[in-house]
Amino acid sequence: VDEFGAIARYFAPLAAGEPGALGLTDDAAVLAPAPGMAFVLTKDLMAAGVHFLADDPPDLVARKLLRVNLSDLAAMGARPRAYLVGLTLPRPADEAWIAAFARGLAQDQAAFGVALAGGDTTAHDGPLVVSLTAVGEARPGGALRRSGARPGDLVCVSGTLGDAALGLRCLRGALGGLPPASRAALVERYRLPQPRVALGLALVGLASACIDVSDGLLADLGHVAETSGCRIVVRQDRVPLSPAAAQAVAGDPALMGDALAGGDDYELAFTVPPAAASRLPGEATVIGVVEAGAGVRLVDAGGNALPVPGRGGWTHF
Amino acid sequence: VDEFGAIARYFAPLAAGEPGALGLTDDAAVLAPAPGMAFVLTKDLMAAGVHFLADDPPDLVARKLLRVNLSDLAAMGARPRAYLVGLTLPRPADEAWIAAFARGLAQDQAAFGVALAGGDTTAHDGPLVVSLTAVGEARPGGALRRSGARPGDLVCVSGTLGDAALGLRCLRGALGGLPPASRAALVERYRLPQPRVALGLALVGLASACIDVSDGLLADLGHVAETSGCRIVVRQDRVPLSPAAAQAVAGDPALMGDALAGGDDYELAFTVPPAAASRLPGEATVIGVVEAGAGVRLVDAGGNALPVPGRGGWTHF
Repeated sequence: VDEFGAIARYFAPLAAGEPGALGLTDDAAVLAPAPGMAFVLTKDLMAAGVHFLADDPPDLVARKLLRVNLSDLAAMGARPRAYLVGLTLPRPADEAWIAAFARGLAQDQAAFGVALAGGDTTAHDGPLVVSLTAVGEARPGGALRRSGARPGDLVCVSGTLGDAALGLRCLRGALGGLPPASRAALVERYRLPQPRVALGLALVGLASACIDVSDGLLADLGHVAETSGCRIVVRQDRVPLSPAAAQAVAGDPALMGDALAGGDDYELAFTVPPAAASRLPGEATVIGVVEAGAGVRLVDAGGNALPVPGRGGWTHF
Repeated sequence: VDEFGAIARYFAPLAAGEPGALGLTDDAAVLAPAPGMAFVLTKDLMAAGVHFLADDPPDLVARKLLRVNLSDLAAMGARPRAYLVGLTLPRPADEAWIAAFARGLAQDQAAFGVALAGGDTTAHDGPLVVSLTAVGEARPGGALRRSGARPGDLVCVSGTLGDAALGLRCLRGALGGLPPASRAALVERYRLPQPRVALGLALVGLASACIDVSDGLLADLGHVAETSGCRIVVRQDRVPLSPAAAQAVAGDPALMGDALAGGDDYELAFTVPPAAASRLPGEATVIGVVEAGAGVRLVDAGGNALPVPGRGGWTHF
């Protein structure tokens, strides 16, 4: 199959639900936001050996790629609409790989209500690199931002943290003492993030600031602190752990660092004014407060400063 | 410099002209099209060793990347607005390379009136891969399409063809018999395309179909023929050559194949109804006609069929 054959056979069907994709037969897509809405645009890439393993199943690579981008839309409180995808395949291009990758996209398109609107595919003498631009919709001025946290706000996070980083450790052969079901649960969190799209939409008008936890909790809260011009204090004992992560940390307390600084959990970290505390969504856990000042401070239950683990998140360089 | 340092130092200044980029400090950009307009979205990637040479100057790589995407917007008759960029750098990331790449973007941003709205950067153990999503604006329903060619329409192309493919031959050590100035002119066409943005805008309401010549003239006209459901007949002797390309073809007639099937010229190929012939833009040359039927036919001045060179364009697999 050549590039045009791959587009027609595997990718054009993914564009069927978006008239503005023009069937992928034109040079570009033409998309208008719904009346009164703006587009929210984000672009994340993933490279084999950096963000996933070269022999990961192609459908999971596709779904993770789409989901990490949808997580950015979730962090903005945007409703997913469409996406464009870029594939740089190891030469020679493997049609079965492309077919499985497209199957993964098809599965998650249906789950998240988006459609393919364009992209580009090539082959090169190097590892797989995949990129995606996600298009969402939000009211102009209504998107969640990182800059709105104010002293007195509560700091919250959805779900549990550290699972993805611990899952990667499992894939690399560590944590052999955990029960198989716990290891499987952690690996699943690494391989297939669950973007918090519905939560992001629910936080519009409620959260004062929001970010998705992709670089690591403390690093990402550091971005919120910096853009908001305030300090964020995190109570380490309040950081929510899954049963599997709690088992791992019980066996080796240093693994708590994965919950604080490991990336790839794709939960939402957000701040809410105290007056909104009664309206906190069910998946939220309060883990700290916003203060005047700068930076992120990690404390124990008595308010004593704790060392900040790791280098504060992945930076990829 | 780490990823966040690179964003702040080299990329955030490129976003200063687009308020919707939110200073690159958020998870996504928030862009609304001008009133009454839709967004036109395209995504093209380039890999070292495939679309450019690994030691090409980084500012030229940046400018070519932006320009090949702007060429897709031009082919749709869209006005460029913003872009998102993805970098996958060979490890370890080279700050001087990033700085020069950003300088190239800055230069062409000013030339084409666009601003950076987001992106992603990583390093991996492999060759450089760069991708870009360009955002343009057009009236809904007013964008140029590939599907509107009708029997009787004139087939036109802007500028001259084959220069980029011949320039690549020069870079690979061929065409040594050409004068240095001719070789330099051809190499420049390969290294730095000139997207026909103004022409694309001028063709709205005039052209019945349009495409940019990136895969090769006959391959790209084949896309127009297929989506329009008609046949395109090209007179080989009418295909416009630059003085340098004409010198090359005079020395080796087989090099005419570069004008017909070589890619990367980024001119616009388009069709116009005969009634619009008097309003053809100055940079257009009429090279053929649209007929009932299918496919692309190459003919001489007497209407006799000529062999179609090459495999009909680059497909990258």
